[in-house]
Amino acid sequence: MTNPEEAKQQQDVHEGSPKVVEARGPAGGDVGNQREESVGVAGILRRWKREDLLRRGSLGLRGLAFLFSLLSFIIMASNKHGDWKDFDRYEEYRYVLAIAILTTLYSGGQCLLKVHELSTGKYLFQRSTSVLFDFSGDQMAAYLLISAASAGVPMTNRMRESQDNIFTDSLASSISMSFFAFFALALSAVVSGYKLSSQSYI
Amino acid sequence: MTNPEEAKQQQDVHEGSPKVVEARGPAGGDVGNQREESVGVAGILRRWKREDLLRRGSLGLRGLAFLFSLLSFIIMASNKHGDWKDFDRYEEYRYVLAIAILTTLYSGGQCLLKVHELSTGKYLFQRSTSVLFDFSGDQMAAYLLISAASAGVPMTNRMRESQDNIFTDSLASSISMSFFAFFALALSAVVSGYKLSSQSYI
Repeated sequence: MTNPEEAKQQQDVHEGSPKVVEARGPAGGDVGNQREESVGVAGILRRWKREDLLRRGSLGLRGLAFLFSLLSFIIMASNKHGDWKDFDRYEEYRYVLAIAILTTLYSGGQCLLKVHELSTGKYLFQRSTSVLFDFSGDQMAAYLLISAASAGVPMTNRMRESQDNIFTDSLASSISMSFFAFFALALSAVVSGYKLSSQSYI
Repeated sequence: MTNPEEAKQQQDVHEGSPKVVEARGPAGGDVGNQREESVGVAGILRRWKREDLLRRGSLGLRGLAFLFSLLSFIIMASNKHGDWKDFDRYEEYRYVLAIAILTTLYSGGQCLLKVHELSTGKYLFQRSTSVLFDFSGDQMAAYLLISAASAGVPMTNRMRESQDNIFTDSLASSISMSFFAFFALALSAVVSGYKLSSQSYI
C-alpha cells in the first residue's frame, strides 16, 4: 500500500499535468525524469515531421511561383502586335516583364537548390544564412510581384473599355499569372518566416 | 579533497557545457538542477526584455503607418481642382484613397488598442487570437498599400511628362505617403510574424 502523497503524484503523471516537473522532490525525481524524457522524444519526432512537411510545402509553393512567373514572362514578352499594340511602349508592362523575369530566376534557382539539398543531403549554405535568405527573398519577391501586377491593371482596364483584342487579352492573362505567382510566394514567405523564427529554439 | 570525477563535473558546470544535463547522475543531480534553474531565469529575463522592446517597436511602427496613411488620405481626398484635375475621375486614385482610409482605420485602431493594453494591463483578446490578428492584419495592409501605391504611379508619371501642376504634385505626394506607410507596416508585419511563431515555445 503506497501513501496518499505518492498516489497523487502517480495520478498526476498519468494525467500528464505540468505540475509534476515543478513539484518533483528527492522522492519523485525519477518519475519526473522519465516523464520529461518521453515528452522530449515525442516532441522532437513531431518537430521533425512538421519540418519535413514545411520543407516539401515550401518547395511546392516555389515550384508554383516558378511556373506562374514563367508564364507571365512568356505571355508578356511575346505580346507585340505592331503600332500601339506593343507591350514595350508602356512603362507598366515593361515593369511587369522585368519583375516576371526576376521572380522566374529567383524561384527557379530556389527550387533547384532545394531539390539538390533534399536529394543529396548536402547543404550549400549554413542553416541560419539559408533561412534568412529564403525569408527575405520570398517576401521581397512577393512585394515586387504584387506591385508590378497592380501597376499593370489600370491601363489594361482603360484599354479594354474601348476595345477587346489579342493584345489586351494577353496583357490581362500575363497580369493574372503575376498575381497567382504572388499568392504562391506570399504563402511561401509565411512558411519561411516561421522557419526563421523557430530556428533559435531547437 | 574531491575525487577526479566530481572535479570534472564541476569544471563542466563552469564552462556551461550542455553535457551536464544529460550526464547528471544521482550524485551530480543538485549541481545540474542549480545550473538549469539559473539558465532558465536569465533566459526568461532576456525574453521579457526582448518582448518589451518588440511591443514598443511595433507600437511605434504602427504609429508611423497611421501618420503616413492619414496624410495620404487627406492629400488625396482634397485633390479636386475641376475638369480633368479631379482625382475621382481615375480609378487608380480612387483605389489609393480607399486603401489609405482602410489602413488609417486599421493602424489607428491597433495603436489605440495597444496603448490601452500597455497602460491598463488588461487584454481585450486572448494572446493567441491577438497575435494571429496582428500578423494577418499587418501583412494584408502592407500588401494593399504597395498594390495601391504601385497602381497610382504609371498614370501620374504619364501626366507629369506633359505638365507639372498642383494636381500632379499632390498625386505624387499622396502616393509617396502610401509607400512610406507600406514600409512601416511591412516592418511591423515582420515583428508580429516573429511574435506569432515564437508564442508556442514559452
